[in-house]
Amino acid sequence: MERHPENPLIRPEDVSPSTPEYEVVGAFNPGAVKVGDEYLLLLRVAERVRKEEGWIRVPHVEFREGGNGIPSVLSFREDDPDVRLKDTRGVVYKGVDYLSTMSHIRLARSRDGVHFTVEKDPFLFPASPAERFGVEDARVVYLEGRYWITFTVVSPDGWATALASTTDFRSVERHGIIFHPQNKDVCIFPEKIRGRYAALHRPNNEGFGKPSIWYAESPDLLHWGAHSCLARPRPTVWEAMKIGGGAPSIRTTKGWLQIYHAKGEGQRYTLFALLLDHEDPRKIIARGTVPLMEPEAPYEKEGFFGNVLFTNGIIAHEDGTLSIYYGAADQYTCLVRTGLEEVFAHLEAHGDRGSRAAG
Amino acid sequence: MERHPENPLIRPEDVSPSTPEYEVVGAFNPGAVKVGDEYLLLLRVAERVRKEEGWIRVPHVEFREGGNGIPSVLSFREDDPDVRLKDTRGVVYKGVDYLSTMSHIRLARSRDGVHFTVEKDPFLFPASPAERFGVEDARVVYLEGRYWITFTVVSPDGWATALASTTDFRSVERHGIIFHPQNKDVCIFPEKIRGRYAALHRPNNEGFGKPSIWYAESPDLLHWGAHSCLARPRPTVWEAMKIGGGAPSIRTTKGWLQIYHAKGEGQRYTLFALLLDHEDPRKIIARGTVPLMEPEAPYEKEGFFGNVLFTNGIIAHEDGTLSIYYGAADQYTCLVRTGLEEVFAHLEAHGDRGSRAAG
Repeated sequence: MERHPENPLIRPEDVSPSTPEYEVVGAFNPGAVKVGDEYLLLLRVAERVRKEEGWIRVPHVEFREGGNGIPSVLSFREDDPDVRLKDTRGVVYKGVDYLSTMSHIRLARSRDGVHFTVEKDPFLFPASPAERFGVEDARVVYLEGRYWITFTVVSPDGWATALASTTDFRSVERHGIIFHPQNKDVCIFPEKIRGRYAALHRPNNEGFGKPSIWYAESPDLLHWGAHSCLARPRPTVWEAMKIGGGAPSIRTTKGWLQIYHAKGEGQRYTLFALLLDHEDPRKIIARGTVPLMEPEAPYEKEGFFGNVLFTNGIIAHEDGTLSIYYGAADQYTCLVRTGLEEVFAHLEAHGDRGSRAAG
Repeated sequence: MERHPENPLIRPEDVSPSTPEYEVVGAFNPGAVKVGDEYLLLLRVAERVRKEEGWIRVPHVEFREGGNGIPSVLSFREDDPDVRLKDTRGVVYKGVDYLSTMSHIRLARSRDGVHFTVEKDPFLFPASPAERFGVEDARVVYLEGRYWITFTVVSPDGWATALASTTDFRSVERHGIIFHPQNKDVCIFPEKIRGRYAALHRPNNEGFGKPSIWYAESPDLLHWGAHSCLARPRPTVWEAMKIGGGAPSIRTTKGWLQIYHAKGEGQRYTLFALLLDHEDPRKIIARGTVPLMEPEAPYEKEGFFGNVLFTNGIIAHEDGTLSIYYGAADQYTCLVRTGLEEVFAHLEAHGDRGSRAAG
């Protein structure tokens, strides 16, 4: 695992805000895809409203017919008795929740995969009440002539996963919510499996067990079923809290490679390797027992949310190397390079082999 | 609303246990359908293990290939230091949860809709690890030559909704989990709407808002998408906690009639009327502002869980009357009769008209 010496590749200050009233606090968790010779990142850009003395101000969206919403601001007087602060995440006004930060998806383009130019306008900005609190963590997969983008939508009704698609990364079509609340970390496989589209997803089963990675199938990418639990958190310091899928799985000679994230003790996020059967990804071939990568660099250990590694965008090169773009500390976009052989060796040395998902 | 004088129609003591080691503690929340001249109820039968001095014993299932599992018992010595009691619902042994009651689905048959004979063997008994803690609350809908049964599956991975189907209520085919955790209260519409199958469902969005009724579509009943939030709990004594769909919606001259349940203050469950647009059920025509029915009878106010009314089985007769089978106090199966005109008059007097789902 070789962290790029120019990390972080993208910082919040490299991104222009959606409106002059906002400031960018995070540019992280990028989806990644190579289109011809161009590297594209779909950044999650988190913004909050610039402070103003005596006021509590939160991001807000004005919806319109068609296309993205328009960024705006809701202001409450600090001394208004109807205003109640709700930890650091937001404010409650007359019993209604408002969040202090809101995310959208922004495109960044590069010729070398290292130096990116961030576009000025959002690619996916909240467009409907189901996205009122933001859109987050895009994954992109190429399938049958289109790029399919799954992303988390957040609203007062919960967080869920929606689908969009594009052929050119200029116009984009929205296809609605494909996994109902609470669900995120949806990774669509880049090819059909036994005649069906397939995906990993992460329903929230808190109260019963711990949030785990599930498998689902679809005839059309829009409607999903045949849900089964694939992998659960193990009671280790790394995985104690929850696990969830990363980028779309990569076809390798040994199986589908999935780099997933685990939330462990102390809210620390690490990356793990998982190898799934080609024909039936519900069968686990090998699963790392220790992280493939842990927060070590200063930009990973400190930031908006320190000690967090999260990948949802990996580019597999023809020479067997991987460019893993990842979010560090919920603030920066970074790059680490490794090779498939290195990951296989890791699983050989530190993997549970032949463990099969129960259920 | 005319409660049947012979209520409760079915009591736990009317139902034989799945194995002599179990005792039946509830026979409630029935799905209902009329097949020819015969009334069928799909009862939820809740069982626990007969007590034995010095032991904590919980229901358990031995799974086998094909068909229902085999009821069995897990026993822990009361003085075993690895045993920890977990409120009234179960026990934790070496960190693993076990529930003290387990439900399955049992058929009851009747010629008059009032006097039922309960079959000896379970119709749907837990059959796989995804059903380890039981199967609950069946809804049945007739569609294109088959009876489709949605039911809640409970396991250490959460509660979700699975689908089964039958043509004769003797053999049954399982189709897997169609709504991932956490999701229950799935009511499939009895006909296609704009070329798609449709359903109401109840994802768990706790933490963000309150559990609400959602709408979804499917091309094949197996895979679901196009999720949108239809109706949310209102801040009243009746609906403060959550709302969820009841039996499959009924086509009336004025729209789709849905009788839903609401959980309010004091964990009290009441029934509400909701009228949805024929062509687009995401449009609400009218919604009761007060309950259609509240717990009043002794068998509703006291029992395994007092002050609970829950319906998931309604038979609409050709003369415009409705037989609403319902669970009372999480213990009994009861019947209340009403007429469509009576429900329309209730909505006329106590309905929000033309309210449209936001989002």
